[in-house]
Amino acid sequence: MRNPGERAAPGTVRKITSPANPLVKSIRALHRKKHRDDEKLFVAEGQKLVTDAIDDGWPMRTLVHGDAIADDAQAMNVAARARARGAAILQVSDRVLAAVCRRDNPQRMVGVFEQRWTALDAVRPAPGDIWVGLDRVRDPGNLGTIVRTADAAGAAGVMLIGECTDPWSSEAVRASMGSIFHVAMARCTTDEFIAWKAGWPGRTVGTHLEGAIDHRRLEPDGAPVLLLMGNEQQGLPDELAALCDDLVRIAMPGRADSLNLAVAAGIMLFELRRTS
Amino acid sequence: MRNPGERAAPGTVRKITSPANPLVKSIRALHRKKHRDDEKLFVAEGQKLVTDAIDDGWPMRTLVHGDAIADDAQAMNVAARARARGAAILQVSDRVLAAVCRRDNPQRMVGVFEQRWTALDAVRPAPGDIWVGLDRVRDPGNLGTIVRTADAAGAAGVMLIGECTDPWSSEAVRASMGSIFHVAMARCTTDEFIAWKAGWPGRTVGTHLEGAIDHRRLEPDGAPVLLLMGNEQQGLPDELAALCDDLVRIAMPGRADSLNLAVAAGIMLFELRRTS
Repeated sequence: MRNPGERAAPGTVRKITSPANPLVKSIRALHRKKHRDDEKLFVAEGQKLVTDAIDDGWPMRTLVHGDAIADDAQAMNVAARARARGAAILQVSDRVLAAVCRRDNPQRMVGVFEQRWTALDAVRPAPGDIWVGLDRVRDPGNLGTIVRTADAAGAAGVMLIGECTDPWSSEAVRASMGSIFHVAMARCTTDEFIAWKAGWPGRTVGTHLEGAIDHRRLEPDGAPVLLLMGNEQQGLPDELAALCDDLVRIAMPGRADSLNLAVAAGIMLFELRRTS
Repeated sequence: MRNPGERAAPGTVRKITSPANPLVKSIRALHRKKHRDDEKLFVAEGQKLVTDAIDDGWPMRTLVHGDAIADDAQAMNVAARARARGAAILQVSDRVLAAVCRRDNPQRMVGVFEQRWTALDAVRPAPGDIWVGLDRVRDPGNLGTIVRTADAAGAAGVMLIGECTDPWSSEAVRASMGSIFHVAMARCTTDEFIAWKAGWPGRTVGTHLEGAIDHRRLEPDGAPVLLLMGNEQQGLPDELAALCDDLVRIAMPGRADSLNLAVAAGIMLFELRRTS
């Protein structure tokens, strides 16, 4: 049986060649949501993501890397920075590396990081800030892509309302292309959201197939904006639509009458940033 | 050994209970690109897609459905319309249906359709038309989502330049949400594209990280637009960038400096439709 608290001492370097090693097993277990929740950790695969996290000062537990990076000064530098910040370093065989990677094409390094949730009462929007509220979003690729898009648009955070897919899953983290380290993540039940929203100081804009306002007529006035979007199947439920100052419809001149959720989020976010 | 030409007689109804039936095997083989290419066929899963295809008069070879639809008047009507249009109807057991479906959650019906490519010399743009040119796009989900987005924006077609992922794969067809039946698809090598582009009567707009023009400054003038986009890894190659009248950069006020390809296509397409 796995010891859930298994961890290497901070700042140490260990060589591991067996996929059965308990430290390796405890990292593999993070591919399951239950273990991520229990440990409040997640895995980011690949040197780009690990570098983004370190650059951002993100709390790092472990860096796993293959033997092959010994010849690569840049990768060795990433490992040295991780160690200096207190991460345990696991230098592993290719077999072990493949075992901890979720991707088909194994990466040369994998980082284990602490999850970081922003509490609702810590959300204090400044003028011009945008938060994206997503109701029960289901697809991890969509969620990660929305986090990436929110980051590109300079949004402050993404709020997950109700039962959503896990932003700390490998697939969501990968789709975010490192933006998971830049954009604040919050989560709440629908009731908690409704209570919190009562104190939101800016506008609340919901996208809705029957919205009265053409998305091109949005005129941001500098107040913080909370952009509310429904999920892949159902659109925005009535109880959330009722909270919106504006219900906006993305004008679609063609035949398809709906958009992929991440594409719709992109169009709305860049429209909100059009004049600001 | 599978007989590649195996097909049921048009307009007939057959009951099949064995996944080893040669007709079933010939449909399953269409999950592989080589067989799709050889047969010039593809599979669309689910009643919504099949209905979209029939509504659009798309050439249909076979409709496979489960026994369960006998009690569903709407589904039976779809089957009757398919048969009237000359499709062979295969009424199959749940086991057979699961075998021909690619999705985890098997659908109640699956259609086999003819691929339809638009030849380059048949592309005759009218004023206001938009074509999207994609250079070596790799991800089937991205391609399908772009087809869906192009359809929503009222674009005329999508042109695949160089070695691209197959738009007739299950994953691309599914991500298109039926828009694969609405939007013309063309394909060519880079050389063929360059030769064809010389006769393009409108503007050519390329997205480029170093584009000189802010995407919000695009001013469509009613001429047809060819929107050229690079792939997920490399952006637009120089030889294609050189063909563009305008190189446009999507202005990103945030930290992430790139967008998912389908999100970028959505922002550009809806920007092009902003005033038209």
